[in-house]
Amino acid sequence: MSRYAVLGAGSWGTTFAKVLADAGTDVTLWARRQEVADAIATDHVNAEYLPDIKLPPALRATHEAAAALDGVTTVVLAIPAQRLREHLQDWADQLPRGATVVSLAKGVEMGTLKRMSEVIADAGRVAPDRIAVLSGPNLAGEIAAEQPTATVVACSDHDRAVAVQHECSTGYFKPYTNVDVIGCELGGACKNVIALACGMASGQGYGDNTTASLITRGLAEISRLTVALGGEAMTLAGLAGMGDLVATCSSPLSRNRRFGESLGRGMSVAEAEEANHGQVAEGVKSCEAIGELARTHGVDTPIVDAVRRVCAGSVSARDVGDELINRERKPE
Amino acid sequence: MSRYAVLGAGSWGTTFAKVLADAGTDVTLWARRQEVADAIATDHVNAEYLPDIKLPPALRATHEAAAALDGVTTVVLAIPAQRLREHLQDWADQLPRGATVVSLAKGVEMGTLKRMSEVIADAGRVAPDRIAVLSGPNLAGEIAAEQPTATVVACSDHDRAVAVQHECSTGYFKPYTNVDVIGCELGGACKNVIALACGMASGQGYGDNTTASLITRGLAEISRLTVALGGEAMTLAGLAGMGDLVATCSSPLSRNRRFGESLGRGMSVAEAEEANHGQVAEGVKSCEAIGELARTHGVDTPIVDAVRRVCAGSVSARDVGDELINRERKPE
Repeated sequence: MSRYAVLGAGSWGTTFAKVLADAGTDVTLWARRQEVADAIATDHVNAEYLPDIKLPPALRATHEAAAALDGVTTVVLAIPAQRLREHLQDWADQLPRGATVVSLAKGVEMGTLKRMSEVIADAGRVAPDRIAVLSGPNLAGEIAAEQPTATVVACSDHDRAVAVQHECSTGYFKPYTNVDVIGCELGGACKNVIALACGMASGQGYGDNTTASLITRGLAEISRLTVALGGEAMTLAGLAGMGDLVATCSSPLSRNRRFGESLGRGMSVAEAEEANHGQVAEGVKSCEAIGELARTHGVDTPIVDAVRRVCAGSVSARDVGDELINRERKPE
Repeated sequence: MSRYAVLGAGSWGTTFAKVLADAGTDVTLWARRQEVADAIATDHVNAEYLPDIKLPPALRATHEAAAALDGVTTVVLAIPAQRLREHLQDWADQLPRGATVVSLAKGVEMGTLKRMSEVIADAGRVAPDRIAVLSGPNLAGEIAAEQPTATVVACSDHDRAVAVQHECSTGYFKPYTNVDVIGCELGGACKNVIALACGMASGQGYGDNTTASLITRGLAEISRLTVALGGEAMTLAGLAGMGDLVATCSSPLSRNRRFGESLGRGMSVAEAEEANHGQVAEGVKSCEAIGELARTHGVDTPIVDAVRRVCAGSVSARDVGDELINRERKPE
């Protein structure tokens, strides 16, 4: 009998815990703050992140990680990318031996340039074939409202991917399996940076043609980087690459896109942070690490580089827009 | 010295004629109705299709095709897909020998299942290496407003593609070249059908995750069909495939998407036609021919098939939505 702990009760962690409960899987959700855990356990609501959603009564919640992790077969990590390592250092001794560890985190760690599965292997002391990644066109609010979507569960151990696939499959949530962890992770991490670029264009008043061009050229960059790092270009053509990128870049709900819009209207990063409820979008952090990874591997990533320079404050979004558009004419 | 005729003064034909004039290329626009040609020539406006755009004074216009075609080096065909053959039968004798013929039409001919370049070769008696196709994320209204975008000029004769590229390149319109005419044409034709599917989902109240899933799986279908017909999968990953598809499916301005939304809200094709100013979207016509092409070549195209059945009136958009989403679980 499978049993899940979902660690992290933000909007995506809470939504994915609901998906598991709706799939009939035994699941406990860990929230950092006791009042959040209590409200989920008793009132079946996460007022801060999903105020309009009635959570399933079968979904348990706790603010004690040890209690959530006790005896589980699968651990789902729903922690922001740049904070995953510090949390895992606390939890490493409590992760049940042999459990599958599923990452929902999207980003590349600053400083180390590590993908999330590498951080998990390292800080959580988890063998790589036990680590799965879940990624796709998965805007949490829409899934919480039970609007249909698909996703990808990637694990080098195909049997583990299939088990997770079955345990989170519902009428509105359709997982596909893949063995390309690297491709899925890079799709999820890089899309935040491209969404920033789309937001910058949109904030300058450009329309759907410009956005579509950035998405297309952006996916080409991510694909080149993926292949250089040992992943598969085909993964990027699928739900965890193109699917996630298109959903994120199209949605007015995307934090990264909104943050980019603020930059495109001429704000500095600090001003954009203030305009976005004090939050810095993940892409602002990951773009440095992704750009560095690309440089290390000799991959040309003009859109990522442009976003980096805007985020570093060395140029304005407007200057970069013209530069991206006025590249030399050539075969596609 | 190059000289262009653009035949067809709808929104895209008029916009592309403006692009050519802005690029400094000598161009005459042919409009079927004399009053439209006169207004463009004298008042520099196309009131019906681009009411807010001031056209360049250098752009000439006429309602006489023979006058437009006299002595040109390049002919641009901006005629709806299903009417291209009848027009070309009239014009075949007037097309200058040796001229490059550029197709802006997007669709597959009903009955014959021919791509537009095949119709041009056939009805216009033009050698295939003189036929170019222009396609990309090119919503006409945005280009007319001089918002930056990119496009692809495809011709099996690379030198002709390069010539067109230079003659239509402006600060806001960036053409790339390609030699894969088949891939560019199928990208342009099939995207209308996928846009109908996205509209149907959106009309049923589904959000960006669902749309992104349909776009991703839809592009996979188009790519398979392209390869079966002798084109390149890489073309579909570029601006004429993914770029055009994303722009069309994202834009509320897209006729095909809007038509699909009407169907998704439960209207019949006839009711949707009435709701959309008496116009049937191109995808409604092309989906039959594209589905037939796919069947002939043994290619699996579940989204195109679903759209066909809705357009044929044999099922509702709602039934098809559930069916597309509830496909069997499998590797991606």
